[in-house]
Amino acid sequence: MTAGVTAAGGFRAAGVAAGIKAGGAADLALVVNDGPSDAAAAVFTANRVKAAPVLWSQQAVADGRIRAVVLNSGGANACTGPGGFTDTHATAEQVANALGLGAGDVLVCSTGLIGERLPMAAVLSGVDMAAAALSVDGGADAAEAIRTTDSVAKTAVVASAGGWTVGGMAKGAGMLAPGLATMLCVITTDAAAEPAELDAILRQAVRRTFDRLDSDGCMSTNDTVVVLSSGASGVHPSREDLEQAVAEVCADLASQLLADAEGATKEVEIEVRNAATEDDAVEVGRSIARNNLLKCALFGNDPNWGRVLAAIGTTAAAFEPDLLDVSINGVQVCIAGAAGQSRELVDLSGRSVLIGVDLHAGSEHATVFTNDLSHAYVEENSAYSS
Amino acid sequence: MTAGVTAAGGFRAAGVAAGIKAGGAADLALVVNDGPSDAAAAVFTANRVKAAPVLWSQQAVADGRIRAVVLNSGGANACTGPGGFTDTHATAEQVANALGLGAGDVLVCSTGLIGERLPMAAVLSGVDMAAAALSVDGGADAAEAIRTTDSVAKTAVVASAGGWTVGGMAKGAGMLAPGLATMLCVITTDAAAEPAELDAILRQAVRRTFDRLDSDGCMSTNDTVVVLSSGASGVHPSREDLEQAVAEVCADLASQLLADAEGATKEVEIEVRNAATEDDAVEVGRSIARNNLLKCALFGNDPNWGRVLAAIGTTAAAFEPDLLDVSINGVQVCIAGAAGQSRELVDLSGRSVLIGVDLHAGSEHATVFTNDLSHAYVEENSAYSS
Repeated sequence: MTAGVTAAGGFRAAGVAAGIKAGGAADLALVVNDGPSDAAAAVFTANRVKAAPVLWSQQAVADGRIRAVVLNSGGANACTGPGGFTDTHATAEQVANALGLGAGDVLVCSTGLIGERLPMAAVLSGVDMAAAALSVDGGADAAEAIRTTDSVAKTAVVASAGGWTVGGMAKGAGMLAPGLATMLCVITTDAAAEPAELDAILRQAVRRTFDRLDSDGCMSTNDTVVVLSSGASGVHPSREDLEQAVAEVCADLASQLLADAEGATKEVEIEVRNAATEDDAVEVGRSIARNNLLKCALFGNDPNWGRVLAAIGTTAAAFEPDLLDVSINGVQVCIAGAAGQSRELVDLSGRSVLIGVDLHAGSEHATVFTNDLSHAYVEENSAYSS
Repeated sequence: MTAGVTAAGGFRAAGVAAGIKAGGAADLALVVNDGPSDAAAAVFTANRVKAAPVLWSQQAVADGRIRAVVLNSGGANACTGPGGFTDTHATAEQVANALGLGAGDVLVCSTGLIGERLPMAAVLSGVDMAAAALSVDGGADAAEAIRTTDSVAKTAVVASAGGWTVGGMAKGAGMLAPGLATMLCVITTDAAAEPAELDAILRQAVRRTFDRLDSDGCMSTNDTVVVLSSGASGVHPSREDLEQAVAEVCADLASQLLADAEGATKEVEIEVRNAATEDDAVEVGRSIARNNLLKCALFGNDPNWGRVLAAIGTTAAAFEPDLLDVSINGVQVCIAGAAGQSRELVDLSGRSVLIGVDLHAGSEHATVFTNDLSHAYVEENSAYSS
């Protein structure tokens, strides 16, 4: 079994150095579904400023059919006006011509700096190179080619005992945020499934995985998660089984994104319990995840639970301030809204931090993931485009 | 004319080292209104987790009458449970006894670390020391005593040609955020005004000054802005004149808070024009002000307008992405949603940054102020409580 998007039967992939990036690194990936099915579903950034490839791909997937996904790093093709959309269209046409498809069967994803046009000669020749390099072993190369500031390529595979497989690849290391972390993700499966079924499965999986990753509160213009079904296994699993496998792949990739977030020194899991509603739990978790003062404190190994309470207090969730409990790495530092066990007992020396919040307002729960705010985050993001 | 809260007639103040802070710095301030009027109004943090002194002071000012304000640095008395509220009550009683007032005429403000009880022996003896030190020249000492991480004391005065004066002091350097920057502010005037009039004036002034300062997106548990009127000038100015003077003092203090924000290297003014509503303009400005990626870019002198557009795209404001214009320090880097003048032309070498956004969606406007996100911000806030 090969890595990532070629782990499932019926898929070929490639990753090549097209010359889009200045340094000569791999920067263009192609994933092709050889069928027999071409069912697909995708979710996109909630940002209202959407990159050209997002605008294109929303239309391309509207009929639930996608044959190929082309992805480039080295440029986001966002905020590039009508010319940028023309570039995306030309890229899709180039893929279609190389593979004998219609352009409307090609999803396009781009990632990199916002506001600059892509070097189209490099992109178009890169498409031809990638088409020539397609292989059933190409998943690792494809994952490599979509990296930007990612320090490692990210792939995941779940093989079902039922004879079908779900694989995926993702990129994302900054702008990780709400309504999708900033990321591109391609998931493939040889399980058979109808487009509407895939769509429901993907939305449910994303809602509880990528959507609960909030590294730095910044929502990108290019986020795309697409799932492609080849049906090559000949098995049509139950919706529950396929949903679970897709969710496992999403959760695996999400944890890899979290671990590779730019400049982070901590992976922080915020578990909100006993909320009146799941939405309340997510709102509280996200508010904590976005509190810069808390994130700096965690970077400094300071179990500053007062900043947790201050973050909770900005939400509209149901709770009473004098009932709030907070634990940090197992120490109940806040009980009933005031100091509990000594903060001296908290060990923050490792990379993993678990913040537990009990709202005492119901029985729902949710977990949100984030990172600390470090010197290196500031460094990487102050120097990225210059 | 003396500084800050004693610039207006009818007020005495003091600042003393009560021993609340470990290092022996001044940490307790007292401001007394000698009348003849004791009209007052106050606004408090919108955070639902409110510190004990906020809960006390909301009740104390409910009748529109305040005779004295006692403020301590060295501890926020927030998330301290019923014991913390008892401490605030005891502080107000101590002030009342020292000055021959009722405790209900005493507003209490605290600032410092959340989650720890105040050293009450120091606080209570400090109240007596401050009462003994009250002086019509005490405004500067009072402003000094409320500093936490503030690098300088902050006072402002506006003298009206009509024979009355508005003065004020403020503290605040971190947790500067929405629905009040994290801060304490006492404004005094010898103009005569009814409590209801003062309340309306204060809310209007705060809405357009402190509420539009969003240094780090973090809303505190202790924010308080109070205005006291002694009426000692014998003049009852028009509401418009008094509102303008109070707004000027607030704006002056707000700009001092911005300039002294923890670790900041830039003061960033975000002017949003041609919005459908003023609320839209504020929402867009605040979203930009809270974008960590942009704030890091500004720290690195990188005019990354793509991050401005990505931040605008997360709002619900009325706009079309392909009509957005963005200028940075006078250079039109984004025109109609795509690249305009070269980003190379932007000079970001100074401390002041002006980001202009034209939404092309109406005729309303608003300006929001923020800072960059620097190494020093991370450093100060990772080491604050430990």
